[in-house]
Amino acid sequence: MFLPILFTISLLFSSSHASVLDFCVADASLPDGPAGFSCKKPAKVTIDDFVNHALGIPGNTSNLLKIAVTPAFAPQFPGINGLGISIARLDLAVDGVGPIHTHPGGSEIVFVVEGTICAGFISSSANTVYLKTLYKGDVMVFPQGLLHFGFNSGKTPALAIISFNSPNPGLQLLDFALFANNLPSEIVEKVTFLDDAQVKKLKAVLGDTS
Amino acid sequence: MFLPILFTISLLFSSSHASVLDFCVADASLPDGPAGFSCKKPAKVTIDDFVNHALGIPGNTSNLLKIAVTPAFAPQFPGINGLGISIARLDLAVDGVGPIHTHPGGSEIVFVVEGTICAGFISSSANTVYLKTLYKGDVMVFPQGLLHFGFNSGKTPALAIISFNSPNPGLQLLDFALFANNLPSEIVEKVTFLDDAQVKKLKAVLGDTS
Amino acid sequence: MFLPILFTISLLFSSSHASVLDFCVADASLPDGPAGFSCKKPAKVTIDDFVNHALGIPGNTSNLLKIAVTPAFAPQFPGINGLGISIARLDLAVDGVGPIHTHPGGSEIVFVVEGTICAGFISSSANTVYLKTLYKGDVMVFPQGLLHFGFNSGKTPALAIISFNSPNPGLQLLDFALFANNLPSEIVEKVTFLDDAQVKKLKAVLGDTS
Amino acid sequence: MFLPILFTISLLFSSSHASVLDFCVADASLPDGPAGFSCKKPAKVTIDDFVNHALGIPGNTSNLLKIAVTPAFAPQFPGINGLGISIARLDLAVDGVGPIHTHPGGSEIVFVVEGTICAGFISSSANTVYLKTLYKGDVMVFPQGLLHFGFNSGKTPALAIISFNSPNPGLQLLDFALFANNLPSEIVEKVTFLDDAQVKKLKAVLGDTS
Amino acid sequence: MFLPILFTISLLFSSSHASVLDFCVADASLPDGPAGFSCKKPAKVTIDDFVNHALGIPGNTSNLLKIAVTPAFAPQFPGINGLGISIARLDLAVDGVGPIHTHPGGSEIVFVVEGTICAGFISSSANTVYLKTLYKGDVMVFPQGLLHFGFNSGKTPALAIISFNSPNPGLQLLDFALFANNLPSEIVEKVTFLDDAQVKKLKAVLGDTS
Amino acid sequence: MFLPILFTISLLFSSSHASVLDFCVADASLPDGPAGFSCKKPAKVTIDDFVNHALGIPGNTSNLLKIAVTPAFAPQFPGINGLGISIARLDLAVDGVGPIHTHPGGSEIVFVVEGTICAGFISSSANTVYLKTLYKGDVMVFPQGLLHFGFNSGKTPALAIISFNSPNPGLQLLDFALFANNLPSEIVEKVTFLDDAQVKKLKAVLGDTS
Repeated sequence: MFLPILFTISLLFSSSHASVLDFCVADASLPDGPAGFSCKKPAKVTIDDFVNHALGIPGNTSNLLKIAVTPAFAPQFPGINGLGISIARLDLAVDGVGPIHTHPGGSEIVFVVEGTICAGFISSSANTVYLKTLYKGDVMVFPQGLLHFGFNSGKTPALAIISFNSPNPGLQLLDFALFANNLPSEIVEKVTFLDDAQVKKLKAVLGDTS
Repeated sequence: MFLPILFTISLLFSSSHASVLDFCVADASLPDGPAGFSCKKPAKVTIDDFVNHALGIPGNTSNLLKIAVTPAFAPQFPGINGLGISIARLDLAVDGVGPIHTHPGGSEIVFVVEGTICAGFISSSANTVYLKTLYKGDVMVFPQGLLHFGFNSGKTPALAIISFNSPNPGLQLLDFALFANNLPSEIVEKVTFLDDAQVKKLKAVLGDTS
Repeated sequence: MFLPILFTISLLFSSSHASVLDFCVADASLPDGPAGFSCKKPAKVTIDDFVNHALGIPGNTSNLLKIAVTPAFAPQFPGINGLGISIARLDLAVDGVGPIHTHPGGSEIVFVVEGTICAGFISSSANTVYLKTLYKGDVMVFPQGLLHFGFNSGKTPALAIISFNSPNPGLQLLDFALFANNLPSEIVEKVTFLDDAQVKKLKAVLGDTS
Repeated sequence: MFLPILFTISLLFSSSHASVLDFCVADASLPDGPAGFSCKKPAKVTIDDFVNHALGIPGNTSNLLKIAVTPAFAPQFPGINGLGISIARLDLAVDGVGPIHTHPGGSEIVFVVEGTICAGFISSSANTVYLKTLYKGDVMVFPQGLLHFGFNSGKTPALAIISFNSPNPGLQLLDFALFANNLPSEIVEKVTFLDDAQVKKLKAVLGDTS
Repeated sequence: MFLPILFTISLLFSSSHASVLDFCVADASLPDGPAGFSCKKPAKVTIDDFVNHALGIPGNTSNLLKIAVTPAFAPQFPGINGLGISIARLDLAVDGVGPIHTHPGGSEIVFVVEGTICAGFISSSANTVYLKTLYKGDVMVFPQGLLHFGFNSGKTPALAIISFNSPNPGLQLLDFALFANNLPSEIVEKVTFLDDAQVKKLKAVLGDTS
Repeated sequence: MFLPILFTISLLFSSSHASVLDFCVADASLPDGPAGFSCKKPAKVTIDDFVNHALGIPGNTSNLLKIAVTPAFAPQFPGINGLGISIARLDLAVDGVGPIHTHPGGSEIVFVVEGTICAGFISSSANTVYLKTLYKGDVMVFPQGLLHFGFNSGKTPALAIISFNSPNPGLQLLDFALFANNLPSEIVEKVTFLDDAQVKKLKAVLGDTS
C-alpha cells in the first residue's frame, strides 16, 4: 500500500537528532548553553521525560515560614527543556508566607487550588502596588522580573500551582539576596538604607555575620 | 529627605507608556499586531486586569463529549498580553473526552487537580506515541504544535489546569478542522484517506454537508 | 600601507569561534541543544556547507500517493543551522497528493515551479478553509502549525519549492500520527470520533494493528 | 449531537482578534510597529491575502544590469505579516548582474529554477569568500546581514527564487548606499578609500552630484 | 545609465512603511504594543530621532543620595524603538549611592568614564555576591533581572555610561517598591521580615504612612 | 530560625547548572551553538568573568587610519555570553577614520566620551543618509545591519564607547570584504561597478592580487 513512500517522506523530514524538531529533552550530562541543556538522544527519550509526579505530594511546611515550593523546572522535568515553560507547586500552611522575590527569567501565573492567598506585585514604573486576595480558582499574573509576594490570608492551608514562561525562571528571594551571603553589612546598609541593627539581625538569622 | 531625588530617578526611568516597561495590558479597542494587542493606558490599568476569576467555576460538561474548557487567554485576561503566558481550566466528566488537537502557537503543561486523565501526544519525527495515565498532582508537557489528547480514564470527574507559553496559543481541533466547515468531502477524503461514508457521517454531525 | 591596523581591527572583532558571529554550521557529531546543532570549527567550514544540490533532482513519485519531498533542512544542509530558514522540493505526479499535515516548528511558503496544485489550510480560530488552485508562479503561505494540504489538480506533473522560517520545521502527517504507530485503536476512535472499521482499515494499511 | 459543546470550546479558545492566534494579515491603513503591520480584522481576511501571483511573471530585464527582482514581502503579500517569512523572484538575463548588497533583516536561501548563477558571500570574521556556480536546482544560503552577490554565468537567462526568514528583510545595495544620495563625495572617499574620480563617476551615473 | 532599473529594484524592495525594514522610530502619539511604540511615518523621520544630547550634561547630584541618572530610553530617544538597545548616564558625586535595584526587562553593562565605583550583583541560584571596585575604563555586566547596586568608592565624582539590551529596560528600586507606596506596613513586614520600626521609618522618609 | 526552610526553597529552585537561570558564562573549551558558547560550570565562575579592564586602555592609533577598536565581546568578556549585550572602545586620533562597515548581528549605540566625531548611516529603503557631527556626550544609534561610518572631525583625539544588543555583533568592513581576499577583481568590478584600476589599487593595498 502507500506505507513505503509516506514512511520515506517521514524519514526524510526527520533527523537523527530530535533537537529543533519536536523537543529537546535535557541531558544534564552534556554541556549546557544560553538556550538550555543539550538534548538527550531520541532513542533514550521516554514518556517519563515528559511527566513529573512531584507536584502531587504536599510540601513540608513545618518551618518558620510555613511554606513549601516544589518545582518542576528543567532540572527536575527534562522534557520541558527548550520549550519555554515550567510549573511548580506552592504550599502555604495557615499563616504561611511567600516572601517578596523576583523571577529574573520569566512571568508567572498563579492558580489557587485550595485556600486563600493574598498576593501582590509592585510595578517598576510608578511603584504601584497591585494587591488582591485570591480565592480557590482565581488566577493572577506577575509580569517578568517584578517584585511580588503572597501569603496565606485564610484560615485553612492554601495550595497553588504556579506556571512560568521559562523552563528555568530563577528565584531571587530578597532576604536571601541581602542577608544570606558575605555581602558586608555596611554595603547592605548603604544600598538599602536599612539600619545597622536591622541588617545585622537578619544576617544573624540567615546565617551570615559579615 | 531623599525622596525628591529618588522620585526623580524613578520618573526619569519610567515612561508615560507602560508598554515595554513592565506590562502591556490589552486594550481590545485599539489595533492589534503580530506581538499582541495594543496597550491600555497605564492610568486605566487596575488590579482586575491581572486577575481572572473564571477558572474557579466548573465548566458545563452536560454535552456529548462531557468536556468543558475555560480559558484565561489574552482576550479574557488582558494583563497577560505580551507576557508569553496563559492558562485554562479543563473539566472532564466521567467518560469525558478531550479530542485530538494542536495548539499552533505554544507548548502546554497540564496539571491534574482531581481525577484521572489518560493523556498522550505523538511526535512528528517518528510518530512515536507518548501516552500516560495521569493521577491527581501529575503534570505532563505537550511540546509546541504536536497532536495531543486526553480523556477521563477514572471513575470520577477530572479537573485539570493547563498552562501555555503564549498569551493566545490557539486551538485546532482535528474534527472541526476536517468536518465543521465547507471543505468539500472529496478533498477531505483525498488528503486524509478516510472513506466517503466516514467523512460524510462526521460532516453531518458537525453541521456541514459540503 | 593601512593593512596592518585594519587587519588588527578585524581580528579583534572576530572570534576563534564562528558561532554567534556570522553563522554556525552544524556539526552533527557534537551535542545539539534547543537552538540547534553545535557549530563546526570555522577552519573546517567550506562553501559546500552553504550549498545543497539535492533539490535539483526529481523525487521518485512511483508510489501510491505519487508524491516525493526532498528536504534541505539542517541535517542535510548544515549551513542553515541557527539561521532560522530552510527549503524543500515537492514533486507531485499527476493525481499526486500531499496529505494533510502540520509543521509544528514554522510557517511555510510554497512556490509552484511547474504544474497546478490545489492547496489549502484551515484556521484554528473559526475552522475557516483557505483554499486556492495555484498555477505556475503562484505562491501561498501556510501560517505556523496549522493543518494544510496540497494535491496535483492539473494534468501534468507539478513541482514546487517550499520554504520555511526554521532550519528544521518538522512534519506531522495526520495519517501517520493517527495510524502508523501503536496507539490503540480504541483510543484513536475515542479522540477522533472515527469509526472502528475506518481506524482499523487505515492502521492495517499503515502497518499497525494495535 | 456533540456540535454545540465543541463549538463552544472552539469559540472560547478563539478571539475576535486574529492577531496572536493563527495569523495577523497586514492592514497597511493602521499604524505599524516593531513587529510588523497591524492586523486586518478577521472578517475582512480572504484567501487572496495568503496568495501572491506576481512571482509567476518574468521581470523586465531590459536594463543595463539585465536584472529584475519581484518581491512578495509584507507590503505585497499581507498574509505573511508577523510570520517571519517572505519570498521573491530574481530574473537575470544573459550577462545580468545582481550587484553586491545585504539584507539587514534576514538570512536568504536562493533556489535556481533555470540557468546558471555564480553567487557568493563574504564572511565578516575573516573576509573569507564563499563562492559557487549554481546550476538548475541548486540552493545556497546567505547568512543574515552579510554582503553577497550573484550574476548570470551561463549562456541562457537565469531564474531564481529567493526566500527569507523575515516578512520584510530589507535590501541595501552597496552602490546606491554609497552613490545614490547626497552623501558628500569627500566623505564617501574618506570612509571607502575610493579615489575621487571613481566616486564622482559613480555619483554621476547614479544621479547625485554632491 | 543603469539608474532606472536599480532604482526600481530598490523601490520594489522597500515599503511605504519603515517598520520592519530598517527601523521603527517611536511615535508616542499612536498606540503602543508589546514590542514597543508604533512607527513614525518615514517621511517624518529625521537624523534627530537617532541622536540624543542629554547624556553630555552632568546630572544634578545635589540630593541626599548624591546621584543622578539620565536615560536615553525609547521615550527620550525615539530612534531606538524596536531595536533592543538603550543607554543612560550615571553621575555619582563623592559618597554618592546607587541603591539596590533591578531592571526587569534587560541586562546592563556599565562603563566607568571617570572615578571609582564599587558595584555588585547577587545571583539568584546561590545568593552569591559578585562585587568589584571599578576604575576608569572598567566595564561590568549585570545579568537580566538580578539585584545590583553601585556606589562611589573614590574621592572624586564618578561618571559612568550604562547600556541595556532593551529600548526600555525598566528600573525597580527596592526601597521605592517597598516603602514609597500604599503597601500596608504589616504586609511589608510580613514579606520582608523587617521590623515594624524599620519599615515605618523608611515609609515616613519615602512619603507614605500606610 | 527560618533559615532551613528558605534555604531549601532556594535550593529547590536553583539548579546545579547555571545556564538558563541567571547567566551562562562562556566556556570556550566546550562546543558552541547558535545561541552562543556553552556555559562554564557555576563553581568556576568568578567576578572576573563579569568584569573587563581592556576598555580603559587607549588603543594604538599609530596607523594609517589612526583608529583603534577594543572590543569586549563574548570571547573577551565571557560573562556576557547569552545575555544579548556587548561593548567596545573606539579611539580616533586627529584625522582618524572609521571606515564604512556593518554589524550583521546587532544594532549599535555610540557615546562620545571625548572629541568630535562625524557619524552617519544609510537607510536601505531609500538610501537616505543620516549624518551628524557628534560632540562630547552625544549618543547616536545605528540600526542593525546598515552601513555606517564615523571619523574624527575635530582637532583633538576622539574617544567613544560603542554598545551592541548582541554578545558578538560581528563587523564587516566594506574594504576588507571587497579587497582583502581572493575574490577575483573581475567579479569585484562586476558586482560593484568600480573600475579595474580602482579595484586593483585597493587589492594591492590590502594585500591581495587575485
